[in-house]
Amino acid sequence: MEPALQLRELASSIRRGDRVALAKGITLVENDSASAPKLLEQMGTPGRAFVVGITGPPGTGKSSLVDRLIEAYRKKGLRVGVIAVDPSSPLTGGALLGDRIRMAGHAGDKGVFIRSMASRGWSGGLSRATSQAIRLMDAAGFDLILLETVGIGQSDIEVVGVSHAVLVVLMPGLGDDIQVSKAGLMEVGDVYVVNKADIEGADLMVVNLLSLFRGTPRSPPVLKASALSGEGIDKLQDAVERIRSPFLAGSPELRLKSIRGMIIETARGAAMKKLAVVSESRAEKLANQVMGGKTTIERAAARLKV
Amino acid sequence: MEPALQLRELASSIRRGDRVALAKGITLVENDSASAPKLLEQMGTPGRAFVVGITGPPGTGKSSLVDRLIEAYRKKGLRVGVIAVDPSSPLTGGALLGDRIRMAGHAGDKGVFIRSMASRGWSGGLSRATSQAIRLMDAAGFDLILLETVGIGQSDIEVVGVSHAVLVVLMPGLGDDIQVSKAGLMEVGDVYVVNKADIEGADLMVVNLLSLFRGTPRSPPVLKASALSGEGIDKLQDAVERIRSPFLAGSPELRLKSIRGMIIETARGAAMKKLAVVSESRAEKLANQVMGGKTTIERAAARLKV
Repeated sequence: MEPALQLRELASSIRRGDRVALAKGITLVENDSASAPKLLEQMGTPGRAFVVGITGPPGTGKSSLVDRLIEAYRKKGLRVGVIAVDPSSPLTGGALLGDRIRMAGHAGDKGVFIRSMASRGWSGGLSRATSQAIRLMDAAGFDLILLETVGIGQSDIEVVGVSHAVLVVLMPGLGDDIQVSKAGLMEVGDVYVVNKADIEGADLMVVNLLSLFRGTPRSPPVLKASALSGEGIDKLQDAVERIRSPFLAGSPELRLKSIRGMIIETARGAAMKKLAVVSESRAEKLANQVMGGKTTIERAAARLKV
Repeated sequence: MEPALQLRELASSIRRGDRVALAKGITLVENDSASAPKLLEQMGTPGRAFVVGITGPPGTGKSSLVDRLIEAYRKKGLRVGVIAVDPSSPLTGGALLGDRIRMAGHAGDKGVFIRSMASRGWSGGLSRATSQAIRLMDAAGFDLILLETVGIGQSDIEVVGVSHAVLVVLMPGLGDDIQVSKAGLMEVGDVYVVNKADIEGADLMVVNLLSLFRGTPRSPPVLKASALSGEGIDKLQDAVERIRSPFLAGSPELRLKSIRGMIIETARGAAMKKLAVVSESRAEKLANQVMGGKTTIERAAARLKV
């Protein structure tokens, strides 16, 4: 069969919601395959699915909270896709194992699709791939896409770019509110969740977070939840729904923001890839000049054009 | 005082090995201050300090191993600088707290300087900053610089670029050897350490790693160690010394490799920053065109030139 024809068939299978085709498509974008851009071109304009980014420090229970949200939205009849960025996966195999464990809870439910994505070698690769996987899931007809990241800074910012709503997940005992504000996380969340609400200090943390927002132009909801007991999940869903309802009503604002983020991540990924390819031999020559004292690293870097 | 004069004084204080000046300089590069490139220009050609990158999955005990290496190299009379990339720090304040706890073990020892660096908002920022912090520590007269990363893929590759030697730290029970080989970590290490050697499965893991290298052109040492008991640290140090001795003897090969890595990271950081600045308003227009079905995300990204 012609490769172009195969790709067209893959594209139409994805758009019909075929799970195997979707998995294959995501692998293509994850591997940065040469056919990935052609596949993506056939996905149409994104903006059907509502994309919720979920971020926060490691250990705050983001995965469990995502599982609760899946349950809550399945009860509403929505089809839910999940992209989980797993930092431990490249070495531990956590991604694949994690998928299997997590899928087990939704076994046989065709309305749920979970995919873990591991960080790749070159900078910009992960955000490009997650943004492209979102487009494939969107085209496959999912209503809600949950994008769960590791909360280590870089990926937080990228999540913000492509998501329609961002949940920042925290937990009691995570250091004082000043640390949270320093991290720049105060600017990115649409909803703040103090998870593990059964732990001492949850109420105090909510109060501290609220007081941080006082005197700023923003006043996002700050909620308590417990992914373990299910406490507060209904209120969390309500908070998400308040952001989703203008989106459902056709408001272009959030769609535009997400598409803008996708364009930026795609361009950024392409730029990084180009730099990775171009630079090796030229950098070698420039390194010799730096070592010989003929130029500095700053000047050499400026001459290493992308 | 003239800013230029202040900067010259800061530069000469760093080159004299002044710790307060060094800390200040690292903060300048960490914050990507406008004066950072000027400061770096005054640091001279790097290549005095031997830079050891330490990478591997979270939880393998890299920090404890680094502490053991500090001890071992202090006994030899070397001045040791440490840069620890801390993924949890943006939110938990782990970086600062971690510094204090770790420094406590070396309190009053002017021959040790430990600095944690947190991941920043834009891609490429961290690797640029760590590479620049290495140059400042190098200029400040440290003999050995230990660069400890989080082992989540991207930073691994960047560590390889600027380090003279790379230690990959693993532990028993981390999934099978195939996962390790898939992660691309088989290509990057100069020395492989199975840490927590007291845990069951350490010997098997060493055997598996050795068999992975059989039939490849590479045969790096694979060692067992226990940062807890100190077992195997002497052999680990020997392995590092075998790489360091040609470097000490003046061999340019590793110095060139590291300088090349620094040029690439500096250029990459500059490219990402430019993209972050340029794109917002232009991306907005392109997003409107994508939403109107006039173009695709791929074509829009191609037009969003860096």
